[in-house]
Amino acid sequence: MTSNSETVHRVFEKLAVEVVQALEAYEPDERFQSTAWEHTGGGGGLSRLLLDGQCFEKAGVNFSHVRGTTLPTAAVETRPQLQGQPFEAIGVSVVAHPLNPYVPATHANIRFIGVPDHKGILPSFWFGGGFDLTPYYPFLEDCVHWHACAEAACRTYGKDLYPRLKEWCDRYFYLRHRQEQRGIGGIFFDDLVLEDFSTTLDFVTNVVHAFLEGYIPIVEKRRSHVWEKRQREFQLLRRGRYVEFNLLYDRGTLFGLQSLGRVDSIFMSLPPMTGWGNLDRYRDYVPERELGTFFLKARDWLDPALKDLYRKQETK
Amino acid sequence: MTSNSETVHRVFEKLAVEVVQALEAYEPDERFQSTAWEHTGGGGGLSRLLLDGQCFEKAGVNFSHVRGTTLPTAAVETRPQLQGQPFEAIGVSVVAHPLNPYVPATHANIRFIGVPDHKGILPSFWFGGGFDLTPYYPFLEDCVHWHACAEAACRTYGKDLYPRLKEWCDRYFYLRHRQEQRGIGGIFFDDLVLEDFSTTLDFVTNVVHAFLEGYIPIVEKRRSHVWEKRQREFQLLRRGRYVEFNLLYDRGTLFGLQSLGRVDSIFMSLPPMTGWGNLDRYRDYVPERELGTFFLKARDWLDPALKDLYRKQETK
Repeated sequence: MTSNSETVHRVFEKLAVEVVQALEAYEPDERFQSTAWEHTGGGGGLSRLLLDGQCFEKAGVNFSHVRGTTLPTAAVETRPQLQGQPFEAIGVSVVAHPLNPYVPATHANIRFIGVPDHKGILPSFWFGGGFDLTPYYPFLEDCVHWHACAEAACRTYGKDLYPRLKEWCDRYFYLRHRQEQRGIGGIFFDDLVLEDFSTTLDFVTNVVHAFLEGYIPIVEKRRSHVWEKRQREFQLLRRGRYVEFNLLYDRGTLFGLQSLGRVDSIFMSLPPMTGWGNLDRYRDYVPERELGTFFLKARDWLDPALKDLYRKQETK
Repeated sequence: MTSNSETVHRVFEKLAVEVVQALEAYEPDERFQSTAWEHTGGGGGLSRLLLDGQCFEKAGVNFSHVRGTTLPTAAVETRPQLQGQPFEAIGVSVVAHPLNPYVPATHANIRFIGVPDHKGILPSFWFGGGFDLTPYYPFLEDCVHWHACAEAACRTYGKDLYPRLKEWCDRYFYLRHRQEQRGIGGIFFDDLVLEDFSTTLDFVTNVVHAFLEGYIPIVEKRRSHVWEKRQREFQLLRRGRYVEFNLLYDRGTLFGLQSLGRVDSIFMSLPPMTGWGNLDRYRDYVPERELGTFFLKARDWLDPALKDLYRKQETK
């Protein structure tokens, strides 16, 4: 273990605990249950899962630190000189599927890949991660708040960082077969190295904090919203599309399965209960229709004109 | 339209109606709802869907007859001389997700691909199809009956046909990441041409009849079986694996999505309601455990020793 990866291990572990505590604050009775597991190649992880909570129907926080003897081909496309090198991967991933259809589902992830140089000099490393929001009954002000937090997390690291990572997120969370975004996005990055190691680690730490600053106030605001059978059924059908994305497109999921990873950890992201069916019967309801026609389109959520534009749409 | 494809169209349409009637016989109130649709490249289809029935939580019967200008690469691997040819595809696919966890889910499909020779001589064609059963609370006698029907459908077309298509089915319906079969199999074939056109058409007609002879008596026997919350929850979690197979591995689904086909028809096969979660809590229940340890393994269901073997297991 290099000293970089020791540092990342410590920081990531702490961040995982912060997220667990922030989510548990909304659960009067339920607590995350932890399962420690070992990786065949070395290392292991800690999966924390909360099920059937009052607020969260399912929430998961995975920490993992695994070693591998050979960097997967997918990981060295832009770094052919690292082909065949041993590596370490440290990551935290978070998913939340709230029970209340008015509280958005969310996902966040940070990861570090370190390749200790075989000559002992200049270890190579990079980071990846991001967060995204999947509302089923969105509120415009929540979407703006979410992206404002994302922008704030990026701002001090360069003016172009947020637009670049936001666009990357939109491109990634896209269901080609439905020509629809999975949610309202956020930020996404892979292969990221800023000025140096500690700057980049600071940035991903900020990413997790921005995630909590973005998500928790939305939970707070919407968790007591009244919902009925109609909203629950719509949420379940919409969750089907979440599953479609994860099983058809998500590279992390597919890579995990192909490398015969721990299935329960890989599928932690899947909603606990999901439906499939035709959404046509919701087309006469404004919020359900506008989810598709307005919210699930890649757009500039920080555009000041948005609120006026949206108000106009509402009064139509 | 060649005269072969006219014949197939007529026969397949009739078979679709037979299946619809056989399934509707178990529904005192609900009927299949039909939706006609057109294919961008020419032709179209008729999707029939029954939802929230007394017996079938979801059942679908799709008929389609579409034309294309260029055979997809995947289809010409074994027939390079047909590259770039226009083609016709005619198919019937059937899926049933019963409400009662003791009634197995099932899937059947027949398809015809015809390539009219551009010189007007000797049109090329082939058939594909099969059927498979996905029980959640299996009965050994049902599994044996199911495979006996499959064997009977193949018998007159060659002694090796059933073993070959049965093995093909086991190979196809396999979840690599879980190292588990999707169900107890049946038969599966692609690129099939027996002696000639009418022999092959006779065979696929037999396949649909064998499917009904296999499935209907099982529905009849198990549809009044008492079930409770435990069985329903187990069924929902198991359905998650059905979804995993269809979205991760099923070539028909993936091909349909990649070619931007009609999403509602492609996803007709997905269960109406599905769960994901850990099955560990069922490990002390014999039927749930034996589903995994005994039934979801590729095996010779017609082996006479099977019944004795199984009885021994039960009394352990």
